[in-house]
Amino acid sequence: MILRNATLPDGTRHDIEVKDGRIASFLPPSHAEPATLVLPSLVDGHIHLDKTLLGLPWVPNQATGNRVADRIEAERRVRSARTVPESRTGANLVRQVMASGTLHMRSHVDIDNRLGLRNLHEILKVREQFRDLVTIQIVAFPQSGILRSPGTAELLDAAIAEGADLVGGLDPVGIDGDLDGPLDAIFAIAERRGVGIDIHLHDGGEGGIAELTAIAGRTAAAGLQGEVAVSHAFALGSVPTDTAARTADLLAKAGVAIMSHGPGGAAIPPLKLLHEHGVSVFGGSDNIRDAWSPFGNGDMLERAMMIGYRANFRHDEELAFAFDMVTAAAARVLGVAAYGLAVGAPADFVVVEAASLAEAVATRPRRKLVIKAGRIIARDGVLVA
Amino acid sequence: MILRNATLPDGTRHDIEVKDGRIASFLPPSHAEPATLVLPSLVDGHIHLDKTLLGLPWVPNQATGNRVADRIEAERRVRSARTVPESRTGANLVRQVMASGTLHMRSHVDIDNRLGLRNLHEILKVREQFRDLVTIQIVAFPQSGILRSPGTAELLDAAIAEGADLVGGLDPVGIDGDLDGPLDAIFAIAERRGVGIDIHLHDGGEGGIAELTAIAGRTAAAGLQGEVAVSHAFALGSVPTDTAARTADLLAKAGVAIMSHGPGGAAIPPLKLLHEHGVSVFGGSDNIRDAWSPFGNGDMLERAMMIGYRANFRHDEELAFAFDMVTAAAARVLGVAAYGLAVGAPADFVVVEAASLAEAVATRPRRKLVIKAGRIIARDGVLVA
Repeated sequence: MILRNATLPDGTRHDIEVKDGRIASFLPPSHAEPATLVLPSLVDGHIHLDKTLLGLPWVPNQATGNRVADRIEAERRVRSARTVPESRTGANLVRQVMASGTLHMRSHVDIDNRLGLRNLHEILKVREQFRDLVTIQIVAFPQSGILRSPGTAELLDAAIAEGADLVGGLDPVGIDGDLDGPLDAIFAIAERRGVGIDIHLHDGGEGGIAELTAIAGRTAAAGLQGEVAVSHAFALGSVPTDTAARTADLLAKAGVAIMSHGPGGAAIPPLKLLHEHGVSVFGGSDNIRDAWSPFGNGDMLERAMMIGYRANFRHDEELAFAFDMVTAAAARVLGVAAYGLAVGAPADFVVVEAASLAEAVATRPRRKLVIKAGRIIARDGVLVA
Repeated sequence: MILRNATLPDGTRHDIEVKDGRIASFLPPSHAEPATLVLPSLVDGHIHLDKTLLGLPWVPNQATGNRVADRIEAERRVRSARTVPESRTGANLVRQVMASGTLHMRSHVDIDNRLGLRNLHEILKVREQFRDLVTIQIVAFPQSGILRSPGTAELLDAAIAEGADLVGGLDPVGIDGDLDGPLDAIFAIAERRGVGIDIHLHDGGEGGIAELTAIAGRTAAAGLQGEVAVSHAFALGSVPTDTAARTADLLAKAGVAIMSHGPGGAAIPPLKLLHEHGVSVFGGSDNIRDAWSPFGNGDMLERAMMIGYRANFRHDEELAFAFDMVTAAAARVLGVAAYGLAVGAPADFVVVEAASLAEAVATRPRRKLVIKAGRIIARDGVLVA
């Protein structure tokens, strides 16, 4: 198989030769007609496969307030009214994101002392179902807190034993009212099980900065550099620049990555500043049509646009940076092996009609083809049977 | 013609009978199968038909800084390199927005002492070209300021004489360095010519609030209630709530409307607070693939989503409010006659696959049909020849 006349994200044009499901070589382009743009597979660094209600009749948002705690409570009501298992809706979402070009993702899965490991078991089924098509990394996520939901620490530990890849966390102070207790529990599990960490941190301002500082300190102390991420980290967007820069230095030194989905209502972290200080920043969808948010569709090219829009990116290099957040940077954080458009890497491609990467991010064209290991799996946004 | 089994935005179902291009009656639905959602035509309260580069090869953003003045300078360079007239690119954009369901719009048109009335003349051609399909209201917009670009006040006045519908303005303090001079000029033209006003106001903080207060005061003094809008008004989103509320009361009393496009990098005004204080708030696209921004596509259903995302809207009523901003509320500000889904109004419809209005805003489905005066003008997002 040869993918002819492909413009790569860097603007160069080639024929791409594929052998045995891998990229064999980049050849000179075989003809001069306008090229299609060939992108690497998209990577979603933060999705909630167990939360989505995709494919079900519309469920209006029921949160009675704007705090994280209000949304946790609303989600409990939506969950108890559910009749379709999370494996079914999760599979709906995996199919949708595959059709838009996402072949790797990190999914948080809710765990608390009411749910137990039910959602984990449902999403493990989804991972198994799609194992030949997409990689799904699972974070055991204490959505109801750890101290607030006694028994959750033990459940997180059990989740790792049953197949979750990382241990998660949630606003130690904002939800559990204690900086050290939840972090003690999370880091203990990570060290005992030899896994990474990904913590949801909505807490803003100086309080959030103190939490980031503690997480960086514990990461370095535990030798977990490169294995820890903080998702959202709104605090970095709500403090003076010098505070953000100082915190960025701590995060970079400790090897703590920052995930942003380009939040709508909250402050966005200063992505370029973080990058300039050596912090890995990567992107994810976050909520997709669930009890938390009516928005989202899992299209990571659209997500790059949203991140760029919120970060006030306008130049081509900035749009390329947003694109990197949902491709190579996310793949590095997720530890995807042999990722990208390089000889020897899997022949995974997303083909779109756009003259340049910047245009693709800005316009988010329909995916003409999604190719996995040299095989077409979606055409014009629809999965091939 | 009868549009069968239509779900209206309020959730009721009807057959819609059309006679002579107008809605003749709402009848009981003729069958029970799942209904399609029928929306009124979409309204873009703030577009720049003369700025867009739509249909041209991708032009990277060239601004060298993040101030409004930097972008004005960058646009001058892009403009001088242009070889295709604004009437052609403007027509490209009108075709694109029509295909997405927009049938009414307010376009700002740049006027300064270098450009003269050239852009106005180009966009007047576009208005003429599409006069049977869309209404285009034109604002004579002093993009380079008024004091900073001597002779512009006279050009704005001449623009009204030549067919512009409103006189525009731009950050009196931020761009012209003077609160009263530019407002004196603008209000004098509005009073002399008997037209309305729409002022771009990016200036933030207390300075922006002082400008809003001055605009409200002058509007009331001139008897221009209901004829004046301020676009962006980022200041309202960057001051304490009580300041925003006090300013909202002044704007409401003076009949000054506020336009927001759901800005990406700037503060969004508190839309619901403004509405609760009696201020008309409406939506618009703002820049679409031009020297200012690489983003935007003119799809007002997507714009409602962006406004909702930025305003942290999640409930169905909030999504309906965002939708109102790009339909009925914008139509009222633009003075569109006989707008909406009512007996006697033009049979203008946008038909989508969605079970509810909230779902349509969140998912922005492809437009199955766009109907103008009972005639299909676009199908599946593509204009009918």
